[in-house]
Amino acid sequence: MQIAKVCGTVVSTQKEPSLQGVKFLLLQFVDVEGNLLADYEVAADSVGAGLDEWVLVSRGSAARQTPGGESRPLDALVIGIIDTVSVENLMLYRKRDQDR
Amino acid sequence: MQIAKVCGTVVSTQKEPSLQGVKFLLLQFVDVEGNLLADYEVAADSVGAGLDEWVLVSRGSAARQTPGGESRPLDALVIGIIDTVSVENLMLYRKRDQDR
Amino acid sequence: MQIAKVCGTVVSTQKEPSLQGVKFLLLQFVDVEGNLLADYEVAADSVGAGLDEWVLVSRGSAARQTPGGESRPLDALVIGIIDTVSVENLMLYRKRDQDR
Amino acid sequence: MQIAKVCGTVVSTQKEPSLQGVKFLLLQFVDVEGNLLADYEVAADSVGAGLDEWVLVSRGSAARQTPGGESRPLDALVIGIIDTVSVENLMLYRKRDQDR
Amino acid sequence: MQIAKVCGTVVSTQKEPSLQGVKFLLLQFVDVEGNLLADYEVAADSVGAGLDEWVLVSRGSAARQTPGGESRPLDALVIGIIDTVSVENLMLYRKRDQDR
Repeated sequence: MQIAKVCGTVVSTQKEPSLQGVKFLLLQFVDVEGNLLADYEVAADSVGAGLDEWVLVSRGSAARQTPGGESRPLDALVIGIIDTVSVENLMLYRKRDQDR
Repeated sequence: MQIAKVCGTVVSTQKEPSLQGVKFLLLQFVDVEGNLLADYEVAADSVGAGLDEWVLVSRGSAARQTPGGESRPLDALVIGIIDTVSVENLMLYRKRDQDR
Repeated sequence: MQIAKVCGTVVSTQKEPSLQGVKFLLLQFVDVEGNLLADYEVAADSVGAGLDEWVLVSRGSAARQTPGGESRPLDALVIGIIDTVSVENLMLYRKRDQDR
Repeated sequence: MQIAKVCGTVVSTQKEPSLQGVKFLLLQFVDVEGNLLADYEVAADSVGAGLDEWVLVSRGSAARQTPGGESRPLDALVIGIIDTVSVENLMLYRKRDQDR
Repeated sequence: MQIAKVCGTVVSTQKEPSLQGVKFLLLQFVDVEGNLLADYEVAADSVGAGLDEWVLVSRGSAARQTPGGESRPLDALVIGIIDTVSVENLMLYRKRDQDR
């Protein structure tokens, strides 16, 4: 999985029928020092992630391992909202209390 | 998924039999600031995307998650035509009204 | 899929038994302006592609989506010989008539 | 598989229900000369790897090939703790005795 | 598939139980001119490849397409020992006679 920050949304009405109701988040990847990268991924969201939150994103066939999602043509999925990232016992990121 | 712009087509008559009737679009990837990249993907299209439109493209086994498409040797699929892309509450892209 | 040019062959006699009879082509990727790249892929061929032809190559599990090929340890497959590539209504590539 | 060093942890409480109890390790990749790279992966761990240990990480659908893990939306898994890495008959890495 | 040279081994005793008895080879990728690259892959071997031999390596789910290997968390497999690589009718590589 990669660490990414929710930075936007993508809306598509003319799409594969199986994708009705799927929310697409625009994620920018975060490097191991916490910097925002130019690389991005558009991922389906099923955990209710919001703008500016850090999330874990799975890619590939993992993105279809949700109840009822096995047959959707998705290759990226937000699998969790990140609370903390620790690197060598230092806290790189902590979700803000007001967001919890 | 990645954001890409339809920039052309690829035609192949001598191909795997299961690919008869599949339309191949040439897509160029778009970065998170809306610039066209040199990287491209040739993807099957089932949503009727046209030249210069922005689309969402899925890669890997996701490209076979369509009714009847499970056994085609495809690794990229246009899954939707993009209406809008919003980044940090700014509109990066909006499909032109005349194209809707 | 990616666009690639057939530039050679790879021969292996001591291999996984399920690969007996599979022909391995050495492909070099082509960029969106038609230039040959250094990146390559060794792909199985089932459409009879020949040296210097441009082909479409699928990677990942797509490479096993052929009748009888589901259990072969392949991750790249030539899925079609390209007739034409058009970019923004200009012809980037056309298979030579003598090769048709 | 890639060689990586365990450099941290990621905690997420609001996540896909199937991921309850999964431990997420932050891994930094190691190059073939033993240097730590900036690229990282967040991987599930089922072998009990600890901070600073070198591990083998599998990515893609391989990450779900564990008993009971077939339906989890994971794309990276620590599959083993590395004892030794030998390159051209030289020992690049040996797990410290006190860690065994 | 990619062309790679066997340059070492990785040993892991504390690993996923399904990987008992699997031999892990350290492979360095070879470019299309025959040069050794810094990029590497640790792959399972089932064809008996030896140090300094050139091999074909499959990645992704292809690595599990061996009899009895379907449920192992592997993402890279040596699928064959290379005899020859020909590029534009020139021999780039030929396995040494004494190794045959």
